[in-house]
Amino acid sequence: MKLGVVILAAGLGKRMRSKRPKVLHPLAGRPLLGHVLEAAMAIKPTRIVVVHGHAGEQVRAALGDVPCTWVEQAEQRGTAHAVMQAMPELADLDRVLVLYGDVPLISPTTLERLIAAAETTPLALLTADLPDPTGYGRILRDPTGRIERIVEERDADAQQRRIRESNTGFLVADRACLADWLSRIDDDNAQGEYYLTDVTALAAADGISVASARPDSLTEVSGVNDRVQLAALERAWQRHQAEQLMRAGVTLQDPTRFDLRGRLSAASDCTIDVNVVIEGEVEIAEGVHIGPNCVLRDCAIGANTEILANCVIEGARVGADARIGPFARLRPGSELADATHVGNFVETKNTRLGAGSKANHLTYLGDASIGAGVNIGAGTITCNYDGVNKSRTEIGEGAFIGSNSALVAPVTIGAGATIGAGSVITRHAPAEQLTLSRARQHSISSWQRPQKQQKS
Amino acid sequence: MKLGVVILAAGLGKRMRSKRPKVLHPLAGRPLLGHVLEAAMAIKPTRIVVVHGHAGEQVRAALGDVPCTWVEQAEQRGTAHAVMQAMPELADLDRVLVLYGDVPLISPTTLERLIAAAETTPLALLTADLPDPTGYGRILRDPTGRIERIVEERDADAQQRRIRESNTGFLVADRACLADWLSRIDDDNAQGEYYLTDVTALAAADGISVASARPDSLTEVSGVNDRVQLAALERAWQRHQAEQLMRAGVTLQDPTRFDLRGRLSAASDCTIDVNVVIEGEVEIAEGVHIGPNCVLRDCAIGANTEILANCVIEGARVGADARIGPFARLRPGSELADATHVGNFVETKNTRLGAGSKANHLTYLGDASIGAGVNIGAGTITCNYDGVNKSRTEIGEGAFIGSNSALVAPVTIGAGATIGAGSVITRHAPAEQLTLSRARQHSISSWQRPQKQQKS
Amino acid sequence: MKLGVVILAAGLGKRMRSKRPKVLHPLAGRPLLGHVLEAAMAIKPTRIVVVHGHAGEQVRAALGDVPCTWVEQAEQRGTAHAVMQAMPELADLDRVLVLYGDVPLISPTTLERLIAAAETTPLALLTADLPDPTGYGRILRDPTGRIERIVEERDADAQQRRIRESNTGFLVADRACLADWLSRIDDDNAQGEYYLTDVTALAAADGISVASARPDSLTEVSGVNDRVQLAALERAWQRHQAEQLMRAGVTLQDPTRFDLRGRLSAASDCTIDVNVVIEGEVEIAEGVHIGPNCVLRDCAIGANTEILANCVIEGARVGADARIGPFARLRPGSELADATHVGNFVETKNTRLGAGSKANHLTYLGDASIGAGVNIGAGTITCNYDGVNKSRTEIGEGAFIGSNSALVAPVTIGAGATIGAGSVITRHAPAEQLTLSRARQHSISSWQRPQKQQKS
Repeated sequence: MKLGVVILAAGLGKRMRSKRPKVLHPLAGRPLLGHVLEAAMAIKPTRIVVVHGHAGEQVRAALGDVPCTWVEQAEQRGTAHAVMQAMPELADLDRVLVLYGDVPLISPTTLERLIAAAETTPLALLTADLPDPTGYGRILRDPTGRIERIVEERDADAQQRRIRESNTGFLVADRACLADWLSRIDDDNAQGEYYLTDVTALAAADGISVASARPDSLTEVSGVNDRVQLAALERAWQRHQAEQLMRAGVTLQDPTRFDLRGRLSAASDCTIDVNVVIEGEVEIAEGVHIGPNCVLRDCAIGANTEILANCVIEGARVGADARIGPFARLRPGSELADATHVGNFVETKNTRLGAGSKANHLTYLGDASIGAGVNIGAGTITCNYDGVNKSRTEIGEGAFIGSNSALVAPVTIGAGATIGAGSVITRHAPAEQLTLSRARQHSISSWQRPQKQQKS
Repeated sequence: MKLGVVILAAGLGKRMRSKRPKVLHPLAGRPLLGHVLEAAMAIKPTRIVVVHGHAGEQVRAALGDVPCTWVEQAEQRGTAHAVMQAMPELADLDRVLVLYGDVPLISPTTLERLIAAAETTPLALLTADLPDPTGYGRILRDPTGRIERIVEERDADAQQRRIRESNTGFLVADRACLADWLSRIDDDNAQGEYYLTDVTALAAADGISVASARPDSLTEVSGVNDRVQLAALERAWQRHQAEQLMRAGVTLQDPTRFDLRGRLSAASDCTIDVNVVIEGEVEIAEGVHIGPNCVLRDCAIGANTEILANCVIEGARVGADARIGPFARLRPGSELADATHVGNFVETKNTRLGAGSKANHLTYLGDASIGAGVNIGAGTITCNYDGVNKSRTEIGEGAFIGSNSALVAPVTIGAGATIGAGSVITRHAPAEQLTLSRARQHSISSWQRPQKQQKS
Repeated sequence: MKLGVVILAAGLGKRMRSKRPKVLHPLAGRPLLGHVLEAAMAIKPTRIVVVHGHAGEQVRAALGDVPCTWVEQAEQRGTAHAVMQAMPELADLDRVLVLYGDVPLISPTTLERLIAAAETTPLALLTADLPDPTGYGRILRDPTGRIERIVEERDADAQQRRIRESNTGFLVADRACLADWLSRIDDDNAQGEYYLTDVTALAAADGISVASARPDSLTEVSGVNDRVQLAALERAWQRHQAEQLMRAGVTLQDPTRFDLRGRLSAASDCTIDVNVVIEGEVEIAEGVHIGPNCVLRDCAIGANTEILANCVIEGARVGADARIGPFARLRPGSELADATHVGNFVETKNTRLGAGSKANHLTYLGDASIGAGVNIGAGTITCNYDGVNKSRTEIGEGAFIGSNSALVAPVTIGAGATIGAGSVITRHAPAEQLTLSRARQHSISSWQRPQKQQKS
């Protein structure tokens, strides 16, 4: 059975009040359409066709290298019209599954169930019992439970409106039948649009038994028409992800204050405190503890390392048994070995810090290679930029950098060297020696403190 | 029709357990009474009379220049007694609307609906169907739906207690009728108080048809008696504000983790991450992105500027295409031009930063005027205070300030000047030249590291 | 009446997916078992016996000096078997109360109610109406309301399954009767375990009237089997604590974003903004304001002091009328007197700061004693560590430390002394004098800025 997937992604989304096409608004850090494409790819169809609107180039650019066919629906003439645009691309296939670019949380499991329902009949609908079905087409079944037709809200009588089983719009159809039905749908309605939902009546009129399946949860079939709905789905998805992590052995201090926008691979017995945001690909080893209000993006944290409150970590690798923060910022290219300490108001960028080395206070380490067992005093600055070029600082193992020092790169500090506090180091500091640059301290006994100036 | 508004604001609020008068407790950063006054002013009455208790001076001081008349209720003798104190100030008016200083979220729309209900009859009540009406007076209606009277909880029989339509206390009355009714209310009850609610029975006894109206939501008629209720209303109001912003085109990553205490003017396609607090008057232009855990107060942010995580911004103006944070603190008088970068652990105060200029790390810029295209190295400090006076630092465009420099104000750095790392600059640094103050670096080969001291 | 308490704490907790014994997982910062022990101790029993599994040593070590008897259940053979292990330790007592190490929020009030219910009969059960009792034994009562027996889910018919009154497992029994019943329980069931729940049937068979009591809330009888349940109980407990604080007169901006892991003693009219975490023992005096995203652990804050956003405070004492933060980190041993100011990106450790003294920007104060009225300039570093020893810095009252200074300890700064900006102070700075160490500023007019290097 060769399956084609059509994703309708041409909707204008006026209620988003945005210049961005609706299907590109992010949910958990990824465009809505990206979620739908991932679900589509998970069921391994023969082909995926995305029907986009006029912002097609922008949509394609945002989605990147997804193996799908792009088709434009130049005019907004309804869902059936949109599917029609895709049909030429599907001529060699058996079945067609219709998805929606603004219904992002549909699961592969549900799609497989819907496809299975269509195995023995040319049409299967995904239906759901909505707590408030207002506005949705209701599923009318005969006394034996067979689907007779879908009645739209506007055409429904009082009794029909009480039906909660509703049409979600997702369907699987035999390609040839679908092509036939689509050709017979008209636009004789208030909006003057071609509605995909009309295939059900046509199928029933043809004497076809219409099958159905249900989603696992209502969030799977919830669409995004405005930012209130977008936020609601974002939260539903975050709760879902949080629950999965907890079941896998991660302690979340508050699952409603946890955001994962990407993928978190967490070994057992990790603890994540309140209000943490995880983005991109993050890996945390066993026993890692992440304090409150941290942001982690594309990084790996070693076993039993503790990330204290209010850290921002991006593009960094941290070893085991390290202690980071509070108020540390690790930027891309930071590689911190085991048992390192990086403390408050410290920034690292493109820097290797050897095992057991410490930079505990008010320091900037950029473009530096630092050996093991080094102590970086408070207020140390690597001067890695001269306004034009970036240069490296090399610090040998066991060195001690006195507080408030400026290391003017390119410069090397020998192993075991000591740098006196407040020095500006512009040339090589020999190993094991004390190196400093310091003006003589003197006092001026006659000195008078300044007086308060008159306001002019 | 000349309308007077009476706001009852004399309640003691014992359950608040506070030294502050109840009506001065803030909701969304503003006193409860301030919200009520705003609603009152929105319907443009002829006069507003606030009835306060003994902390009147404190209340008046907190509310500032509100155009209203203040009347004291010296003794707490009930709501009718409180309204009576206001009547002398209303003698020339036609109608009286009674509001409550501890019911802060009443909307002008609802008030207008209530006033309209009183157009053809001398009394209209605001009633609401409460999910749990325990403690409230229930609205008794005759079979035709006319209000007969209000039955208090203590006097209600079992059937009456099942009535959910309850008296909210809000009412509009003909002034002359109200004066008459008030004169007939007695304090013959357990508390020995004069209850405003008794006007309904008196009106009905006079054969008057009592009209009614409903609020749009129950939060409008929810009062604050303790801090649990205060927190509940705070959250309801925050949800309401969040929803309005989302509908207007702002993406909120989590509407339940967003606090607006003042006014946010946001252009389209702004994104606000989790746990952001906005205070005072804040304006963000199109495409602004605000990262998690930021606090913004009284500031304006230009188009497409990105505020990264954990920033605190107050009294600042930031241009377009700038990048601020993470961990930046912009204090009052900070004016950052377009395309500026202010990075981690950087504080600015009373400082102009020219277009494209950067201060990316561990820097304090106070009382400085900095041209365009300037690079401020890590660890730079403007020494703007000598213990008595504040002085200014002027930095010409294109200057490069080496890391860990101290610029001792008053001082000027010429355009295109370069300051060597670690310098203390006390006098003018000429344009285009390298200026530095640096002691010679030397090493001591015989030096021994200190030994561990014996604990004595 | 001599009461013994048995706490069953031997469960494996496989669904926690953890190497840590289930009863050691923390709730509000304390092991589950610690909560149960506190409730047990509150009712002042004659003896507490904890039945642990193989990780007994770890459990005992984590709980510390709790006055209880530890008994091992070497094999997991059911709850009755577990209680049997404890019986030898209870031989001299009258009654036995059975608690569960993974049901942490049981309250002393409820336990006292259950004990009272058992005053006139040998067995009393704690029962609760569960919204979803699936999986729980249902309480069968005869028409007069007497408990007949407990029917397990698997044995219940459809009508019995609709019963919501369920067995919580908590019970009080006459010790001698309990010993007898335990000896008669068999393991003739699917799991091959001895179930404590069987005592009810045995008691009933003996003609004994089984009493019952109810908890105040369902969270008291909710157990922890996985981290989803742990998080749910954590939130329920936090909500409970938040509500208690609000009723006591603390304003919480958002009770759902407040975490207390320990004890908070708060005087009246304190305000705690969103997302604050309190750990250990914290005391805040009247009128204290704590800004958003702060973490406070084991500290005391004086009256009317303001802690601004994003502070981390641990092991510190702060006086009245102080202003701390934003972005301040006070570490253990910090003692800040009244009216002190500690500003952004400032760290203090083991340091006394005298009344009215200020350290407002980018500073590290470690092992320092600082008098009153001192101004510490931006970028000041106390160099308290030479790689081996820590030394102290003493600063006399009224001193002014210029910005970007390094104070190399041990060192003393006299009262009223002024330190010039950018100095490295290694020897005593005399009182009232200006002391500095500074190289001469000079400019190099022929200097050329570096050129962009070719990428090789």
